[in-house]
Amino acid sequence: MTNNQKDSGVLDTMNVTGIIAEYNPFHNGHAFHIEETRKNTNADYCIAVISGSFVQRGAPALVNKYDRTKMALEHGIDLVIELPVIAATSSAETFAQGGVCLLDSLGVVSHISFGAEVNTTSDIDMLDKLADFFAFEPPAFQKYLDLELKSGCSFPAARAKAAVLCLQQMAFDSMNTDTVAQLVQLLASPNNILAIEYMKAIRRQNLKLTPSVVTRNGAGYHDTDTDTELASASALRKFIFQDNSCQGTDSEVLNQMLTRTVPDSVRELLLNAYKTHAFLQEDDFSDLLYYELRRKFLRSASSDPDTECSDLEKRIANNLETFTCWSDFVSDLKTKNQTYTAISRHLLHAFLGIDAELLAAAKNCHYAPYARILGFRKDASPLLKELQEHSQIPLLRKIAKERQSLTPEQQQLLDLDVYASDLYNRILFSKTGIQRKNEYRQPLIIL
Amino acid sequence: MTNNQKDSGVLDTMNVTGIIAEYNPFHNGHAFHIEETRKNTNADYCIAVISGSFVQRGAPALVNKYDRTKMALEHGIDLVIELPVIAATSSAETFAQGGVCLLDSLGVVSHISFGAEVNTTSDIDMLDKLADFFAFEPPAFQKYLDLELKSGCSFPAARAKAAVLCLQQMAFDSMNTDTVAQLVQLLASPNNILAIEYMKAIRRQNLKLTPSVVTRNGAGYHDTDTDTELASASALRKFIFQDNSCQGTDSEVLNQMLTRTVPDSVRELLLNAYKTHAFLQEDDFSDLLYYELRRKFLRSASSDPDTECSDLEKRIANNLETFTCWSDFVSDLKTKNQTYTAISRHLLHAFLGIDAELLAAAKNCHYAPYARILGFRKDASPLLKELQEHSQIPLLRKIAKERQSLTPEQQQLLDLDVYASDLYNRILFSKTGIQRKNEYRQPLIIL
Repeated sequence: MTNNQKDSGVLDTMNVTGIIAEYNPFHNGHAFHIEETRKNTNADYCIAVISGSFVQRGAPALVNKYDRTKMALEHGIDLVIELPVIAATSSAETFAQGGVCLLDSLGVVSHISFGAEVNTTSDIDMLDKLADFFAFEPPAFQKYLDLELKSGCSFPAARAKAAVLCLQQMAFDSMNTDTVAQLVQLLASPNNILAIEYMKAIRRQNLKLTPSVVTRNGAGYHDTDTDTELASASALRKFIFQDNSCQGTDSEVLNQMLTRTVPDSVRELLLNAYKTHAFLQEDDFSDLLYYELRRKFLRSASSDPDTECSDLEKRIANNLETFTCWSDFVSDLKTKNQTYTAISRHLLHAFLGIDAELLAAAKNCHYAPYARILGFRKDASPLLKELQEHSQIPLLRKIAKERQSLTPEQQQLLDLDVYASDLYNRILFSKTGIQRKNEYRQPLIIL
Repeated sequence: MTNNQKDSGVLDTMNVTGIIAEYNPFHNGHAFHIEETRKNTNADYCIAVISGSFVQRGAPALVNKYDRTKMALEHGIDLVIELPVIAATSSAETFAQGGVCLLDSLGVVSHISFGAEVNTTSDIDMLDKLADFFAFEPPAFQKYLDLELKSGCSFPAARAKAAVLCLQQMAFDSMNTDTVAQLVQLLASPNNILAIEYMKAIRRQNLKLTPSVVTRNGAGYHDTDTDTELASASALRKFIFQDNSCQGTDSEVLNQMLTRTVPDSVRELLLNAYKTHAFLQEDDFSDLLYYELRRKFLRSASSDPDTECSDLEKRIANNLETFTCWSDFVSDLKTKNQTYTAISRHLLHAFLGIDAELLAAAKNCHYAPYARILGFRKDASPLLKELQEHSQIPLLRKIAKERQSLTPEQQQLLDLDVYASDLYNRILFSKTGIQRKNEYRQPLIIL
C-alpha cells in the first residue's frame, strides 16, 4: 500500500489526480469539480473511481455504469475504474477506504480531489483535524456515541455530538463556542463526512496521496432544488422519478430541467433513458428483495428459532408480511438510530448475498482487490502504460481472460461485481426489453 | 396407511369419494366428472384434493387456490383439501401418490374417482393390468427404458415402448397385434398415465380405496379446441393467454368462449380475473427464477468448479446468459428425452427451494403429512365430524394455531406450502396491486 514507485521514470513528470464518485447522474457540479481539480492539482490526467451497478445509498444506479463512464470521459476524466460493489454499497467509511486504497494501489496517483462544504481555510484545517480524530478515535468516543444513540439520536447526529464532546474534553485548540458551532456545522454535511472519510483512510493506511479540496458550490447534497445550474444528483433523481410517474406525457419538462443542470451530451443520454423507461430505482427490485428475504426467513424458521439475530433482522422478519415495495419497507424498518440509507444498504447486501465471508475477503485487501477499467480516453494511453507498469493490484481490461490469473479471493469479489451487474441488467431487461451485453462481453468504453 | 376405521359407526352408512384435481381452471368437463362420480360411486360426499398455488406442469396456477376452491364447492364438491406443493409440483407418480395417500389417510374415503380415455371395459381391464405392471416393474423394464431413451425417445414414449416390450416378453395375455396397439394407445394419453399412477399408488401402498373410472368425453388433455363445451383446462389457458396479450381490448371474445366451456359462476370469476390482470403464468416469475438460478450459479462457481452436477444443471448454467423468460428458457433446455413439463418442474423446485432434504421429509410421510382444508360446504358438517374422528393425519383448519402441534418435518412441509403461496401472492400483487391475505390469516371458504 505504499507508492514509492512514483519517484522514478515518467512519473516524475506525470501528475495524476484521483476522484471517487458515483456520477449518478453526471451533472454540472461534477463537471465543475473536475475542472477545478485540474487547476488545483495541475493534473495531467484524472482518474475516476466510480460505483458500478449499485450505489452507496443502497440502491441501483439510475443509469448503467457504461453510460456513466461515457459521461465522465466526455467531461474531463481520462480513465474510469469501477469501485467493487461491496465497497460501493457499504458505509461511508468502507466506501471511502475502498476508493482511496484503489487509487493508491494504482501506483501513479499523487492527489485525490473531493468536494467539501467549506468556506474558509479554517474550515479545511478543521476537516483535517476531524479526520485525524476519527482515524484514531480515543476509547472515550464509543462511550459518548453509545450514550447519544441511546438518547435517540440518528447515527450521524450521535457521531457528531460524541466527536464534539470528545474534542472538547481533549481541549482541542482550547475550543470556544464558535469552534464548537463550526465543528457541528461541518459534521452535518454528508459531503464533509465523505471528505473526512477520505482523509481518514489516507491517515490510517499511511498513504502518500495528497488531499485536494474543491469547495462545493450550488445546491447541497440533499437539496432538492433543480432551478439552479448546480443542482445535486439527488435533486435530479428526485425530479426524474416524480416526473417519471407520468411517463406517458412528453419529456419537455425533463428536457428543460436537464438543459439547466447537466452538460448537453448527458442530457441526450438521460432523455433517451427516460423515453425507454431505463431509469432504475430500488423499487424495480422489490420482487427480488422480497424473494430473498422470504427465502431466508423460511430457512431460519425451519431451522433453529432461537438463532441469534440482530434487532434489524427481527424487524425485517416481523414486517415482511406487509411488504409492498423496497422503499416503503425501508421506511417501515427505520428507527431513530438507523438512517434510511443504512437500512437500504443492509437490504441491498442481503439481496446481493454479501455475507461475512465476502466482507472478510474484501477487507483483507482493503476493498481494493483489483482495478477494473470501465473505459478511457484514447489520448490517455501514456497513463495506461504507466498504470500497467506501476499498479500494485491486477489491472483488468478483459475479465473473461484475466479472471483466471486472479487469486480465489479476488475471483470471488469479481464474480460478485459481475453478479450485481447481471441482476441490474436483468431488471433493466424486464422493465425495458433492452438487453445489455454480458459483463464478460461488454467492451470497454473508449473515447 | 390402512383404513380399517371405516368398518365402524356412521361410516357404514356414509359413502365418501375422493377426487384428485387441479381445477386450473374449473370447467364443464370437471362438473361432468363430479356428476358422473356421484352416480357411479353413489357418493354421499365428494372430497377434492387440489393443487395449491403451483401445479403439476411446473407453473403457477392460473387463479389462486381459494378461488379454485370456491369453484369446486359450487359445483358438487363438499370439501377441498390442498395437496402439499411438493407433491403437487412433482412427477405424475409423486403427484398421484400424494393425492391417493392423502385421501386414504383421511380414514373415511372408500372410492377414488378419476377420468381416463377409455372406450371399452377391455380398456379399463388393460389400465388395471398396466397399473399392476408399473407398481411392481420387473428388473428388465429399466434396461428397455434406458435403451429407448438412448435411441432418442421422449421419456413418456420410451416408457410406453419399454412397457410394451416387457409385457410382450412376459407373454402377458398371449398378446396379439391388436392388444399391443391398444396398450400403446392407452399409454399415449396423459390422463391414462395419471389414472395408472393412481391405481399403482393404491397397489403399492396396499390401500383399500376402490378406483372408479369416468370415461373422458370431449377434448383431450392437450387438445386446444375451445369450440366444444367440453374443452380442456389446457385449451382454456392457451386461449386466455393468447387473448391476454391484447388485454386493452374488451373481454367479449373471452366471455363467449367461457360461456361455452365453463359454468356461469366460474365464468364471472374468470372474467373478473381477466379484467384485473390476475391470471398468473410461469413468465410472471421469470425475474425470480433468474435470480434464483444466477445466485446458485454464483455460489457453485466460487466454490468447487468440479462438483458433480447433472446434465440438466450444466445446460442451465450454460444457457443462463441468454435467459429471457421462464417459458423460453424451458424451450432452450428441452432435449428429446426430457419433456417441457419435466424441465419446468425442475426449475420450479429450484425456485421454491425444494431440495433433497425436503423431498426426503415428504417421501417419509408418503407426501401426505397433513390434510389442510381449504374450504367446505356447510351441509358437509357430518363429513367433517367423521374426518375429525378418523383422520390418521393432522387435519388443519387454522394453521396459525395448529402449526405448533405438528412434528418438525410436518412443520417444514407446511412452511413450504405457505412460502409457495406467499411467492404466488407477491407476484399477483406486483402484477395487479391485489393484496391477498397472508396464508395464516386467510379464512376457509365456506359455502
